[in-house]
Amino acid sequence: MSNNLVISIDAMGGDNSPRVVIEGLALAAKKNPDARFLVFGDSSRVNEILKEYPSLSKVCEVRHSPEVVRNEDKPSAVIRNRNTSMFMAINAVKQGEAQAVVSAGNTGALMAISKLTLKTIQKIHRPAIVTIMPHRTGRYVMLDLGANTECDALNLAEFALMGNVFAKHALDIERPRVALLNIGSEEMKGKEEIHQAAKVIKNSHLDMDFIGYIEPHEIPEGKADVIVTDGFSGNIALKSIEGTAKLVIRLIKDSVKKSVMAKLGLPFMLGVGLRIKKTMDPRLYNGAMLVGLNGLTVKSHGAADALGYSVAVSNAISLARRNFVTTIREELEHVDLDELLQEILYDAY
Amino acid sequence: MSNNLVISIDAMGGDNSPRVVIEGLALAAKKNPDARFLVFGDSSRVNEILKEYPSLSKVCEVRHSPEVVRNEDKPSAVIRNRNTSMFMAINAVKQGEAQAVVSAGNTGALMAISKLTLKTIQKIHRPAIVTIMPHRTGRYVMLDLGANTECDALNLAEFALMGNVFAKHALDIERPRVALLNIGSEEMKGKEEIHQAAKVIKNSHLDMDFIGYIEPHEIPEGKADVIVTDGFSGNIALKSIEGTAKLVIRLIKDSVKKSVMAKLGLPFMLGVGLRIKKTMDPRLYNGAMLVGLNGLTVKSHGAADALGYSVAVSNAISLARRNFVTTIREELEHVDLDELLQEILYDAY
Repeated sequence: MSNNLVISIDAMGGDNSPRVVIEGLALAAKKNPDARFLVFGDSSRVNEILKEYPSLSKVCEVRHSPEVVRNEDKPSAVIRNRNTSMFMAINAVKQGEAQAVVSAGNTGALMAISKLTLKTIQKIHRPAIVTIMPHRTGRYVMLDLGANTECDALNLAEFALMGNVFAKHALDIERPRVALLNIGSEEMKGKEEIHQAAKVIKNSHLDMDFIGYIEPHEIPEGKADVIVTDGFSGNIALKSIEGTAKLVIRLIKDSVKKSVMAKLGLPFMLGVGLRIKKTMDPRLYNGAMLVGLNGLTVKSHGAADALGYSVAVSNAISLARRNFVTTIREELEHVDLDELLQEILYDAY
Repeated sequence: MSNNLVISIDAMGGDNSPRVVIEGLALAAKKNPDARFLVFGDSSRVNEILKEYPSLSKVCEVRHSPEVVRNEDKPSAVIRNRNTSMFMAINAVKQGEAQAVVSAGNTGALMAISKLTLKTIQKIHRPAIVTIMPHRTGRYVMLDLGANTECDALNLAEFALMGNVFAKHALDIERPRVALLNIGSEEMKGKEEIHQAAKVIKNSHLDMDFIGYIEPHEIPEGKADVIVTDGFSGNIALKSIEGTAKLVIRLIKDSVKKSVMAKLGLPFMLGVGLRIKKTMDPRLYNGAMLVGLNGLTVKSHGAADALGYSVAVSNAISLARRNFVTTIREELEHVDLDELLQEILYDAY
């Protein structure tokens, strides 16, 4: 492929693959005419579906992969099998044939193969999972969401750096406001590693608008563009947010169902319902991204439909187009976060 | 006071004290005719407001306290001043004159004086903050919410025990379902101390319906009655839930405002709005309780109105009526959680 912008696709992951994957690609390709796709999977099945999408076909190169990673496969087993569509798709990024890979397959396997194959960026200690979420007036990103249940100050500072670059590239925000998730705004509140991370970030001269601590209830107000936290807390916050949004909407629906009066009023509320759906539609926030590796891995939800899948692909394209991984490397060139942390810890004595 | 059910009241804490406090007491007294109150504060001001509530006056004993804990006071300073309404109100519990204390004052001060004065229950290592929250079909309790940012397995097991007793007494659930907050349902997911806590609880023969792990998005569905977690994660979950509930309702309001059509439909939706408000009204969930001490301390929100304050008082009454502290002590008589944890850790080698 001559075009520089190439995304590698695991066509076999997810509930309705490869059909949903191809349908999603078609949507993403329409929005991103400069992108090309390396599609790994059962080539006869993939090519048959591709026939329905002639303009997509022109930007796809299909490569046959004889095997598939199943949902029940253990990460320890899949990393040894180089014949799966997932392995081959990730490997294409390693070989420099693509800048990012998208898969809707088994999360654990995707993480394991990505780490093994792409390797962590030099100077980054741990990759993180990041996603895009809606707030009242826009979108924000949060990381880590579960790759690292325990994090030290250095990990958090690295997440801040990666999240900052991620938000610039994926949300198109020139100077994202970066905040550390904490349970209070006072300097002494929360955990020691958070206080240390704040110091590392402040003293790092990273090109970043670091605004200090943020509490979870301030996130929906849009106070920050990048929320940095450990994988346990991030996962807790993310799932609390998702669960509560669903609860409130469910309570409203339950309540409307019980009321004849409310049912009469429903037609008037159609526009409001649509607008809320447009803001909160989980398909528009599909895609968890594994960052910190030499290449970008995007995990689409296994149950995502074509629209959801296309969002994951579009995110991969946005990040690849702006050389996400290279930017992280460049930002790290001028700074040694590890050394900085040691200095701060030393000063504390 | 001859009656056994006595609640000690710090009449001077909070934004509109002592008026809101007395108004709240009047509401709580109506619902709990067997309760009596020891009211600490500026006696002339308190008595003047009490004149407006003759039936409340009959169940109140006002005691003068010359000083007040202010919002800006440091915990280290307030614990030395025995003349504040807060100190005197807590001390009444220590002296056995009351079973619980309610204050809308400075949280840090309330925690500090409570710990110092009431002391931790023997066999309990750390007190916890617990609150009551709404789920889709009822209410649940969650602890710890911030008293302990780092917790080991033993702390978590103790929180489970206290939360179980708390839910029985405050929610009137005969056999609460107790769950540990985690980021996955698989046994290996999450943190080591959570896995160990699960083992301690399972092997403790505590009288408890322990249902294992719960993920945050399952909480609103009402899968458990008691959610056990460390103070950092609990605070993150609580504030994420509060923030998101507000966000969704705000998005709907914003959207209705923008639409003439929706405004026309509003009268039909009045019932739905009221029902949602009735379920989600934060005043109905006012009161964070400090449990694990020899006596119960209830913190009302500083900005609570009379209804909110009455909820905090009613919670104190429910727990006192059923001898909350004694039940915790009794449950601990038959079990040594500390020893159990040591055994489990030993077995792991």
